[in-house]
Amino acid sequence: MTDLLPTHDDVRRAADRLRPVAAITPLIESPLLNEELGGRLLIKCEMLQRTGSFKFRGAYNRISMIPDDKRKDGVVCFSSGNHAQGVAAAAQMLGVKAVCVMPSDAPKLKIENSRAFGAEIILYDRFRDSREEIGDRISRERGSTLVKPFDDPGIITGQGTIGLEIADQAKALGVKPDAVLAGCSGGGLITGIALGLSGGLAETAVYSVEPVGLDDMARSLESGRVEKNDPAARTICDALMSPSPGDITFAIARQRLKGGLAVTDAEVKKAMALAFRHFKIVCEPGGAVGIAAVMTGKMPIKGRTVVVVASGGNVDPALFQEALASA
Amino acid sequence: MTDLLPTHDDVRRAADRLRPVAAITPLIESPLLNEELGGRLLIKCEMLQRTGSFKFRGAYNRISMIPDDKRKDGVVCFSSGNHAQGVAAAAQMLGVKAVCVMPSDAPKLKIENSRAFGAEIILYDRFRDSREEIGDRISRERGSTLVKPFDDPGIITGQGTIGLEIADQAKALGVKPDAVLAGCSGGGLITGIALGLSGGLAETAVYSVEPVGLDDMARSLESGRVEKNDPAARTICDALMSPSPGDITFAIARQRLKGGLAVTDAEVKKAMALAFRHFKIVCEPGGAVGIAAVMTGKMPIKGRTVVVVASGGNVDPALFQEALASA
Repeated sequence: MTDLLPTHDDVRRAADRLRPVAAITPLIESPLLNEELGGRLLIKCEMLQRTGSFKFRGAYNRISMIPDDKRKDGVVCFSSGNHAQGVAAAAQMLGVKAVCVMPSDAPKLKIENSRAFGAEIILYDRFRDSREEIGDRISRERGSTLVKPFDDPGIITGQGTIGLEIADQAKALGVKPDAVLAGCSGGGLITGIALGLSGGLAETAVYSVEPVGLDDMARSLESGRVEKNDPAARTICDALMSPSPGDITFAIARQRLKGGLAVTDAEVKKAMALAFRHFKIVCEPGGAVGIAAVMTGKMPIKGRTVVVVASGGNVDPALFQEALASA
Repeated sequence: MTDLLPTHDDVRRAADRLRPVAAITPLIESPLLNEELGGRLLIKCEMLQRTGSFKFRGAYNRISMIPDDKRKDGVVCFSSGNHAQGVAAAAQMLGVKAVCVMPSDAPKLKIENSRAFGAEIILYDRFRDSREEIGDRISRERGSTLVKPFDDPGIITGQGTIGLEIADQAKALGVKPDAVLAGCSGGGLITGIALGLSGGLAETAVYSVEPVGLDDMARSLESGRVEKNDPAARTICDALMSPSPGDITFAIARQRLKGGLAVTDAEVKKAMALAFRHFKIVCEPGGAVGIAAVMTGKMPIKGRTVVVVASGGNVDPALFQEALASA
């Protein structure tokens, strides 16, 4: 298995594919907040990426790796929303037909946007149907390529281009981050980032952040084997509800992650409000877990430099208003 | 007068001063929104600038032009908030003491942040006292340098560095914008931008955008002389309430602005919600007027490329919630 895992060089190749189309998102900070924290908090603004989340990177990279003669059969994906938008937008740009299998309770914004990018949307019941089965069936029936949400080298290395950018941007600022944090559902983002960082910032500690009760990656890292979440567990972080790490992502995580953190929904809402106040950015719940880990002290920052990937901003206005009101 | 006006080269010198300290803010777009509009809307994200608005640029540039032997006497400014934060942050970085004269009804966030940057805050009644008189008096009593909000070449050229960045970023995207829009209070931002653009994008039309009823620049451009606003006029755009253009800014505006637009508070709230949805950024009311001008069709965009400067994101949560709810 280990020999088949994607490498830092694969991330560099993904960066070459993404260069003409993906945004290099800014790495920002707030001097006032840094003073309060007694450390340096740098936010990687992936809500400013195409489609409002990092997912465009992996999707575009993966779809552009499909051989020409297979592209006409289209692609299919299952996703709570951000991956669907990424796949829909990337497929549209590459002239490939896309089907997105999405939970019927996904944020309206994510469903509408995926449709607006020209994808066919199939809704399912998150707590009754198996999205994997639906995706597999469509893939078999239509011959279309399944673009997995995380457990695929093309996806992982696409997300990993964020790690390359962080390394470059940190260098330009003259800092060596002590830690890099990102949200974790199936682990494509955080393991990709770890691979991306393994060039220039190999000594930086990388941590996954998950919702409490859905911290399968943290528990898997702890136990040394793939752990599953209780299917009854709930969170406002709609983007972070995968039942367990993938085989590939877990293999990379074991090698390259320092550990896993978990935060509550209330902490996430406060982090969304803090990002509004100090950084003037819109974080969806799943995009704010890293900030929450720092603000609660679960990730110490005093005297340190911590990079947090704010991974997306696709949140319905009502929930955002609720987060602002609760802070 | 015309011979004394700042030039494009002065903006370049300001850029040299700002290079080590100011953010180069991203120029972003939404493919979905572009498709809806039938044109290309590019947003210059100045809410991601230090202190959450463009004002840091002018303040830092102006204060760094104060001779060494005058710096110990400090600086004083009057401001509804963003200029105060810019002056407070820049003064702190340059080791200069700052006094900010602010209206007592300024957004709490702006007052708190100015204080947090180490400035002494003096509050006044926006509709009864003259902030100019208070500022002048403090300047006389303490010998401190008055850092004007807009009618000063050092301020104008600092804000103008946004125009240089727009020219560079548009070039990198391979586009020649048809128009550039920015909010206008006293005119420092929009005239600075016009100067900054006059190098690479001299043919791009530049427009000021103001709140309806406080459209002194638009009316001044129309009549050819400095017009004043009705003191009874009100708006949610707290940053755009100057009574009239400055002498210097109006002289530049007459030469370089194509015209002035005006938008209502209701249109501004809708624009704030649109920026939240499509761009994942936080716009304060005064920072959203340019987007409002495009969305209402007051600035045509079909088949064109329009750059809008979203000038700041310092808005209290309650007002932001109201904007989201009203959309």
